[in-house]
Parts: sequence; structure tokens; C-alpha cells
Amino acid sequence: MSDKGLLIVLSGPSGVGKDTVLRHVESENEDVNVSVSLTTREMREGEINGKSYYFVERGYFERKLGEDAFLEYAEYGGNLYGTPKAPVDAMLARGDNVILEIEVQGAEKIRKLYPDCVSIFILPPSLSVLESRLRGRSSDDEETILRRLLIAREEIKRCVEYDYIVINDDVRKAVDEVVGIIRAEALRTDRNKQKIKEVLNNE
Amino acid sequence: MSDKGLLIVLSGPSGVGKDTVLRHVESENEDVNVSVSLTTREMREGEINGKSYYFVERGYFERKLGEDAFLEYAEYGGNLYGTPKAPVDAMLARGDNVILEIEVQGAEKIRKLYPDCVSIFILPPSLSVLESRLRGRSSDDEETILRRLLIAREEIKRCVEYDYIVINDDVRKAVDEVVGIIRAEALRTDRNKQKIKEVLNNE
Repeated sequence: MSDKGLLIVLSGPSGVGKDTVLRHVESENEDVNVSVSLTTREMREGEINGKSYYFVERGYFERKLGEDAFLEYAEYGGNLYGTPKAPVDAMLARGDNVILEIEVQGAEKIRKLYPDCVSIFILPPSLSVLESRLRGRSSDDEETILRRLLIAREEIKRCVEYDYIVINDDVRKAVDEVVGIIRAEALRTDRNKQKIKEVLNNE
Repeated sequence: MSDKGLLIVLSGPSGVGKDTVLRHVESENEDVNVSVSLTTREMREGEINGKSYYFVERGYFERKLGEDAFLEYAEYGGNLYGTPKAPVDAMLARGDNVILEIEVQGAEKIRKLYPDCVSIFILPPSLSVLESRLRGRSSDDEETILRRLLIAREEIKRCVEYDYIVINDDVRKAVDEVVGIIRAEALRTDRNKQKIKEVLNNE
């Protein structure tokens, strides 16, 4: 019921289960869309081009950079990731809620660009659970796993910069909590100035 | 899952249906308690002493005032209303969420005493709906209704001082929104410092 759509920034370490949570949030809520980022990293098994990411060549990404087509971009684990500006602005203008799944550096930039955005950090129940989830993912080699764990620990320390934390010890619970946060934030007084005026003027 | 119980301040004009909403919120959620205030006003039909309010004599109320037994108190429509301190502190210490149903002056005081409280204002769908609800309440005479409407309009203007607004156009929806706000607020990062430490230390 808020005056316009919300921009939600969602982060969490690799292996925490962000994608699964977001897939549920998006498919179960018509008014919530997940922005699809561009990346130069290789597609993993189970990922879909245009759904998980737009998987592009480095040259294409850099050309888009030159055109100022990104809200934010970052290099991460040797790969480029970027949030395209145009589709996000279009969805917000339409009144839809938009979730950006980005890492901590990108989140920091978005918070500055959109001070009224809502930021959520997904935490694992513990670092050991995160490690076993990463090891269970057959696509990664030992070096990749160790690098991801190191990055994960640094990222988790920055969760205090976010408005909310959701612990993903159960996917259903985590999905309900993310949706609950979006629904509650839409009721914030400062997002409903227009609605309040209507109540007061409607004698 | 937050580190401790939340203090929720809930206000709304007379006739908006706060009591009905709160009765549902309390009975459907074991971890949410509504603080019972003391008042010197007369009991209305359907109200229960010790549930709706503790209905007391003015002399008793003033004695308690002398003992500094209230978190806040206010005179309103010629009657005294006060929130007793001891039971609220006991419930918060136990980790329960406590809802204080108070008018705008009291809410202002509580916000200063408990800066991390959550404040919710219940709005009617329109002022005309509020007026017909007040007129439908057989217990009030015309003078009382007009006074309540005048006060209601002034109160509604102050809803912008609250964190959230909930429009009571449907009791079920309003109940779900109040509960949703409490659940989401419990996920705020600044209420979960302890939890975050545990995740980081639990290798």
C-alpha cells in the first residue's frame, strides 16, 4: 500500500542459499521482482542465462560500462558483476518492488544512490554450516572453496551495515522473513505520506 | 529471534478498532502481551476490569502517581490514563514483546524513554468511516461523539511521528500487519548483535 515500489538490496556469502530464497520470494509474490545482473563469470550447472544472470563476455561488459549502463558494478573473485540501470528504474516506476542481489561493495553504492532502500543480509546458521554447503557444491574445487570461505567471513562481518538480517537455517522460514520485511517496510509512515493525506481529506 | 523483547507503542483515534485488533494480536501470538493501563474513566459495556483497563478511583490513581508507579500518564477527555511501570519491565525482562496502547501524548513520552521502541498508528480508512463507527457505538452521546471526532482529527495529524501506519479497513488484515511489523522488527540488525556474534564464532 506504500506510495511506490521498494528497492530491496539483498546480500549474503556465497553458499548461503540466496538464489533459492529469492526464487521462492519472486515466484510466490507477483509484486516482487528480482533484478537480473550481468556477469562475466562462467555459468554453473543449474543456472539459466537471463534468469540467474546474463552471462556476457568481458568485452561486452566493458562496453556497457562505457555507456554508463550500470547502477553499480564490482570485480569479485576475478569476475565482473553489474546491475543494469534501465530495467530497475522501469520496475520501480511501475510500482513494483525490486530486489537487487549484490555483494557488499555494490550494496554500499546502492545505499548511497537510494537512501530509502531496504537492505537485508542473509546469514548462514554458522560458518561450519556454510563450509559444508560450499563443499557439497560439486562444481567448485578446493582452492575456490577456500577463497570463497575467506571472502564469506569478511562479508559476514559487514552484515551490521544492513537494515535486517535473516538466518537461512530453513528455506521456508527465510523466504517468509524476507517477504515479511518487504510487507512491513511498505507500512512505514515515511513511505505513505500520500495515503495519510487521503485519509485526512476523505471526510 | 532478537536479543530481547520489543516494546511496541500502538495508538489510534477512538473508534478505529484498536481493541479488537489488539485482542486478536495477543490471543494469536504467545510471545506478544498487551500492557493493561489504569484509568479513571467509567467502564463501557463489554469492557472487562483488568483486561481492557484497570478501572480505578481518581484518589487511587493519584496515590500511585505519587509513588512514581507510571511509565507515562495523561489526562484525556477529563479522565486519567496511565501505564504501570512494573508489569511492563517484568515482561520485557522475560523476553516477551509488550504492546502499549496509548494516546499520542503518552506515545511521545515512551519514545523518549525507550528510543528503540517500535511505534504503530492505526488509521481509519477515512474520517467519515470513523464518524459512522463512533455513531454506531450506542454508549456515547452526541456531545461525546463530537468531542471524540475533534480529538481524532488532531491525533491523526500526529500519525507522522510514528514508525508505521496500519489502515484498519479489515480487522484480519490489520492484525496480520501489526504482527508482521513485530516479526520484521525483530530481524533488525541492531536488535541482533548477539546473534551475529554467535554465527561468526561458531566455526
